[in-house]
Amino acid sequence: MYKKIDKNDIDFLISTCGEEEIIIGKNISEDFSHDELGGIEKYPEVLVYAHNTEQVSKIMKYAYENNIPVTPRGQGTGLVGAAVAIHGGIMLNLSKMNQILELDEENLTLTVEPGVLLMTIGQYVQERDLFYPPDPGEKSATIAGNINTNAGGMRAVKYGVTRDYVRGLEIVLPNGDVINIGGKVVKNSSGYSIKDLIVGSEGTLGIVTKAMLKLLPLPKKDISLLIPFPDLSLAIETVPKIIKSKSIPTAIEFMERDVILAAEEFLGKKFPDNTSDAYLLLKFDGNSKEEIEKEYENVAHLCLENGAYDVFISDTQERNESIWSARGAFLEAIKASTTEMDECDVVVPRDKVAEFIRYTHDLQNKLNVRIKSFGHAGDGNLHVYTLRDDMNDKEWEMKLKETFDHMYKKSRELRGQVSGEHGIGYAKKEYLHESQSEAYMGLIKNIKSVFDSKNILNPGKIY
Amino acid sequence: MYKKIDKNDIDFLISTCGEEEIIIGKNISEDFSHDELGGIEKYPEVLVYAHNTEQVSKIMKYAYENNIPVTPRGQGTGLVGAAVAIHGGIMLNLSKMNQILELDEENLTLTVEPGVLLMTIGQYVQERDLFYPPDPGEKSATIAGNINTNAGGMRAVKYGVTRDYVRGLEIVLPNGDVINIGGKVVKNSSGYSIKDLIVGSEGTLGIVTKAMLKLLPLPKKDISLLIPFPDLSLAIETVPKIIKSKSIPTAIEFMERDVILAAEEFLGKKFPDNTSDAYLLLKFDGNSKEEIEKEYENVAHLCLENGAYDVFISDTQERNESIWSARGAFLEAIKASTTEMDECDVVVPRDKVAEFIRYTHDLQNKLNVRIKSFGHAGDGNLHVYTLRDDMNDKEWEMKLKETFDHMYKKSRELRGQVSGEHGIGYAKKEYLHESQSEAYMGLIKNIKSVFDSKNILNPGKIY
Repeated sequence: MYKKIDKNDIDFLISTCGEEEIIIGKNISEDFSHDELGGIEKYPEVLVYAHNTEQVSKIMKYAYENNIPVTPRGQGTGLVGAAVAIHGGIMLNLSKMNQILELDEENLTLTVEPGVLLMTIGQYVQERDLFYPPDPGEKSATIAGNINTNAGGMRAVKYGVTRDYVRGLEIVLPNGDVINIGGKVVKNSSGYSIKDLIVGSEGTLGIVTKAMLKLLPLPKKDISLLIPFPDLSLAIETVPKIIKSKSIPTAIEFMERDVILAAEEFLGKKFPDNTSDAYLLLKFDGNSKEEIEKEYENVAHLCLENGAYDVFISDTQERNESIWSARGAFLEAIKASTTEMDECDVVVPRDKVAEFIRYTHDLQNKLNVRIKSFGHAGDGNLHVYTLRDDMNDKEWEMKLKETFDHMYKKSRELRGQVSGEHGIGYAKKEYLHESQSEAYMGLIKNIKSVFDSKNILNPGKIY
Repeated sequence: MYKKIDKNDIDFLISTCGEEEIIIGKNISEDFSHDELGGIEKYPEVLVYAHNTEQVSKIMKYAYENNIPVTPRGQGTGLVGAAVAIHGGIMLNLSKMNQILELDEENLTLTVEPGVLLMTIGQYVQERDLFYPPDPGEKSATIAGNINTNAGGMRAVKYGVTRDYVRGLEIVLPNGDVINIGGKVVKNSSGYSIKDLIVGSEGTLGIVTKAMLKLLPLPKKDISLLIPFPDLSLAIETVPKIIKSKSIPTAIEFMERDVILAAEEFLGKKFPDNTSDAYLLLKFDGNSKEEIEKEYENVAHLCLENGAYDVFISDTQERNESIWSARGAFLEAIKASTTEMDECDVVVPRDKVAEFIRYTHDLQNKLNVRIKSFGHAGDGNLHVYTLRDDMNDKEWEMKLKETFDHMYKKSRELRGQVSGEHGIGYAKKEYLHESQSEAYMGLIKNIKSVFDSKNILNPGKIY
């Protein structure tokens, strides 16, 4: 059992961070009892804002010695309860450690504190003609949140995921020790890759207090294609053909008419087209219009051959903005259309996406529940939402479990994985367990013990 | 202490793999007592060729129960003694598990057994208009060897390293359990990335028995530029400027005149030019000649502005072949020019390469020892060779240690890492230890214990 927070603990926290950075018990805002998706709710006993690595280290050392659970927190934009203080204790908020520390233009690296927002990084590097490719929909997430979920986003097709852009990390271990891993180097084969173990570990192995990110030169130009299809299967089945062609799009998203309508209503703005049942949305980037044209003409032709009604080309800032901001609003739009929802974030092999989506369509009818989806057709990562609408608590609990059981089972059959980019957190533990062997889960558990033998850092998550 | 191999063990191995696959004691070829670089020598007690995962699993289970050390082995092309049976026991040779199992053109994945050679993969995918980008100089290495060292190679500047192309693995754990991690999926945020822990673990955490690799469409065209400079500093200092420009070369190698001369002598063939002190060798790839031309013209201009004497463009198969085969022969050529040598494979931030190479030049004079180098200027990974020439055993031992001590110390000062792509193995343990904190080394050691509490799988390596 964990120790409950008492007066001594509060005194220690005040002496470490200052009184203004400590919020206790009932004074803690409701926001900190859940994450973006809600559903999983629990208040920490005390909320602490850290300002530097030394404070984080001192707090972890104290918590470790005193057996107090610590939940690291950024902007709370997660969707699986990973940043909820399931066991109470200290919530360690890193959002005030939000400085960009160094841009190294020789090595193309950006060194940042954990609480810097993704949108801040995006704007900062773009102004300097540089590019940080990972592009999750939620731009107000912190970079450490992105690192801890190995966030993917829309540009993964061409550029990969967050893991691919983390060169070095400063980590505070659960016992308060501070380690530095990696650095500005491009390659590394020097012992086990602790860096890659931390990436995607959802704040359970250590606290990221600094990150060195890899940047690229900013592509000079991008063009988007919105491609209507008579139905979703035709649309999605075109994707492996695009991948096999020589043209590599930056992004390949799929969307259905009803999700577009929801986004139009939510944003109060019209989408360029909403007359077809299904769409692919592609982006191409490069250094010249001619270079991109050659790429997309090839793909446009291929889509028309495979049953697309048309290809709308968007090459102005405004049009691109309107299409991609609608795409960025899908999650919020679906959320606004119901009382509560939960998400299934499976990733399946690219050639199984159509089969999975057809399965969820059938499931809607079979289980009499609304299911909405969109996602990254180009990398097989789907975001499938089960909507509560007017179900009562008990109905919802049962219906959600039934729906999830079906979907994760189907994903296993298709050799998919439980999470493509949102993580396991608290909400998806059962499904991770079902999808993995005992030997694998044993490794996960014992690796956790290596880092955190007292299980005080973000306990109750992943396994 | 480990159990010595006895009659019962041999009987077990024969019953598992067949008599023809077991070679005992004095019958073991000298080749298996060392790796490519020599220096570290020790015979296994028994050499076993496995043909399938079940045999590997049975052998590991038996070895685990009986406390027998097992050293996995591919083609033995390593350079740090990682595949040498330091503690005797069983050498488990996986080179006969060398089948390509499946090409999935929808998902662009290739599933292979561990013993498939890099050159076999390269040829197989190229014939099908596909591309496996990692390109280490040693094409006769096995894919599992590449995975275990997280091999980099020449194309890392544009395409990344082996880690970036491993989607899924089948692993036999030290106790014989078989686990499958990852798969054909493009993204994954489902628990700690055991896959990334195995990549680069030098056969100490598990035995790779199957790998799913990511492929790309084959670029249609490539062009190489050989660029002479008056001196190496000028050449290397141009590299960060190239990286900052919008053009991303596939490879940026540096070379010095004396290494080119050694390669000419070794191959009995002339290099296109050998009149300058230093060269950059660049490659560009893409889907059309025009696309590539635009890229390289920009870079050629930039090099001339920064002091290059000239830019030789090579766009024919024959010329490319002659340049890159010379580059591929550097290691062998230097080896042939002396009695023995050892390698320092540090990686430093890209803007510190020139400083490091200047330091090794000075070190030659200061320590009175021949030091030759070449390497990946584009990613900061250097291959620096200390040559024995006519030193006696004792002189060589002392001189090598002195030289290495200086070079690794310099690398630490420049915030480099001990190994960019060849690994730590047995030879570089001391330097890994010096470069990392106690907390970090403690994690490495304890992670090893999670996988292998008896320390029977490739013991004596990394830490």
